Amino acid sequence: MPITIDHARLLDFVQAVFASYELDPGDAHLCADNLVAADMRGIPSHGVARLKRYTDGIADGLIFPMNRPLIVTQSVSSAAVDGQAGLGQIVAAFATRLAIEKAQQTGVGVVTVRNSNHYGIAGYYAQMMLDQGLLGVSMTNSAPLVVPTFGKEMVIGTNPISLAAPARRHRPFFLDMATSVVPRGKLEVYNRENKSLPTGWAVGTDGKECTDASVVLDNMTKRAGGGILPLGGEGELYSGYKGYGLAVLVDILSGVLSGGSYTDRVYAKKDGKNLPPDVGHFFMALKIEAFIPRDVFLDKMDDLIDSLTQSAKAEGQNRIYIHGEKEYERFERYKKEGIPLQEKVYATLKEIARDRGLAFE
Amino acid sequence: MPITIDHARLLDFVQAVFASYELDPGDAHLCADNLVAADMRGIPSHGVARLKRYTDGIADGLIFPMNRPLIVTQSVSSAAVDGQAGLGQIVAAFATRLAIEKAQQTGVGVVTVRNSNHYGIAGYYAQMMLDQGLLGVSMTNSAPLVVPTFGKEMVIGTNPISLAAPARRHRPFFLDMATSVVPRGKLEVYNRENKSLPTGWAVGTDGKECTDASVVLDNMTKRAGGGILPLGGEGELYSGYKGYGLAVLVDILSGVLSGGSYTDRVYAKKDGKNLPPDVGHFFMALKIEAFIPRDVFLDKMDDLIDSLTQSAKAEGQNRIYIHGEKEYERFERYKKEGIPLQEKVYATLKEIARDRGLAFE
Repeated sequence: MPITIDHARLLDFVQAVFASYELDPGDAHLCADNLVAADMRGIPSHGVARLKRYTDGIADGLIFPMNRPLIVTQSVSSAAVDGQAGLGQIVAAFATRLAIEKAQQTGVGVVTVRNSNHYGIAGYYAQMMLDQGLLGVSMTNSAPLVVPTFGKEMVIGTNPISLAAPARRHRPFFLDMATSVVPRGKLEVYNRENKSLPTGWAVGTDGKECTDASVVLDNMTKRAGGGILPLGGEGELYSGYKGYGLAVLVDILSGVLSGGSYTDRVYAKKDGKNLPPDVGHFFMALKIEAFIPRDVFLDKMDDLIDSLTQSAKAEGQNRIYIHGEKEYERFERYKKEGIPLQEKVYATLKEIARDRGLAFE
Repeated sequence: MPITIDHARLLDFVQAVFASYELDPGDAHLCADNLVAADMRGIPSHGVARLKRYTDGIADGLIFPMNRPLIVTQSVSSAAVDGQAGLGQIVAAFATRLAIEKAQQTGVGVVTVRNSNHYGIAGYYAQMMLDQGLLGVSMTNSAPLVVPTFGKEMVIGTNPISLAAPARRHRPFFLDMATSVVPRGKLEVYNRENKSLPTGWAVGTDGKECTDASVVLDNMTKRAGGGILPLGGEGELYSGYKGYGLAVLVDILSGVLSGGSYTDRVYAKKDGKNLPPDVGHFFMALKIEAFIPRDVFLDKMDDLIDSLTQSAKAEGQNRIYIHGEKEYERFERYKKEGIPLQEKVYATLKEIARDRGLAFE
């Protein structure tokens, strides 16, 4: 049974956890808000369930909460940032603000980041750009969990792509998608429910179809072979090489162009010990008015959304969604009704509270 | 039986066809080279088989070969271009050169285009940026052939995304992919061979799975309902909404941000008559040296490609490809051995030669 918790209370607690590392209130709020926003949008895998990985990362000397990002090089419209192994959220927000500033001055801001950590949901930073009236793009590479077409080793991350664009009557278009067919969390749900995985989600140690969730997850943990498939599935029949290609695109923009790591060089180990994760990000802000009048853009966005959602429905369906709609609706509902947390997650939060000398009941 | 033709001879002929519309030699070469390059890369659907659509478009007053693109607005790093219903290749190359110039000056160049026509393969313009040492991105919207998740009408294009990035020892990474699960041409191949379509490629008039290629193609031609599915297939099980979302991302950047058309507003009809296609494009050039030293980038690209292609192979597979590899290999082979053309395509070229008063034997 999930335990429902008021979003403000959860936010306060998570913020207190980050503040206990001597972060200033703004930074602690940012990190907490990023995790809670994921829960509220319905992406619990990137929500407070992940807080323990952050506190562990700090304890293990892989995340340095007091390190601040540095600008390595910049031009009027571009910058490369070194995250200095700081908290991914602080690093990413810094880079996002830089992209926003440049876009406001020149129409375009592109910022790459190396030597960062997990930055939460990609969409959080696209939303930051949206909040400033800009069109926002956010990408990151991540721990390798995905097998390339014709391969059997996890060498690429689930490397998400996010784009947010405002509309007028409608909510913004808000895409935030992993380039794998499913996230690891989906395999865990099937495992808990003892259900066979659909064909085309994952492969076993031989690189061929495997529908046993517990086997796949176990192999993944041991890095014994096999893993999640890219969007488009196994082989070439459903164009799995496209999902694979998009994951590499994200790695080139986030990992290579930043001068950082990519593919299985992210979250690498040496002699059994974890190296600094060296996660890379890519942000692009576009100033709408640098291209067309804002009013024209907003009207066209409404019309684009109408052209899709008002088109004829497949038999048995009564609604065509636009990206972000479900998430914004869930966000508003959870804000009113509270956020449902798995008992296990709740217990972990209590454990963190004890460790950090904080109250959480 | 395909007819094999020397690539230089084919290029000369197609160039002569474009020159017969009083294009200057540079522009005629560009248009011809774009189509022949598609054949040489193994994308015949975008090759000289399409020449007739260009000559028809000119005859029908939808493409104006002598119109030249205009810059509507620009900043140091951005521009919006009106293609003036000119030839897509001339418009797109103009916009690409503008993006290159801006990137060379400021690190980043982003150019949107409205009121254009079909521009051939997306990758052609990414390659133009690559040839100038830049990282190149090219996208375009296109005629609506794809059904959104839970829909049954073709309201989105196959909206391709291309990214080209140089390496040192290896060939460049070269992604050029439609955001649909397959292109229309694939359905035509299955139809010719009387094979059932794989589940998850297309839907019928009710928006549900349809594996009869001739039925799907017939419905598509009549716009009777049904069409091609986005990357990820039908419904949500394989994340078809991701392919759908990527197609919308392309439409927002190419169609909305340019002030042009998008979704089924592209290639629209009114009272049974074709309106100007109003195709939109998006180009981004990134100057590598604005982010990291070029040598570092090239070495990291080689290492990224090695990390993927040298990883363990699935059972029964002996090679993991990187994007563009197959296409570059085919290009080199066809350059030496000639380009195989379907008899029907060859016959159409002869017909065009006759119409334009040109020799083609």
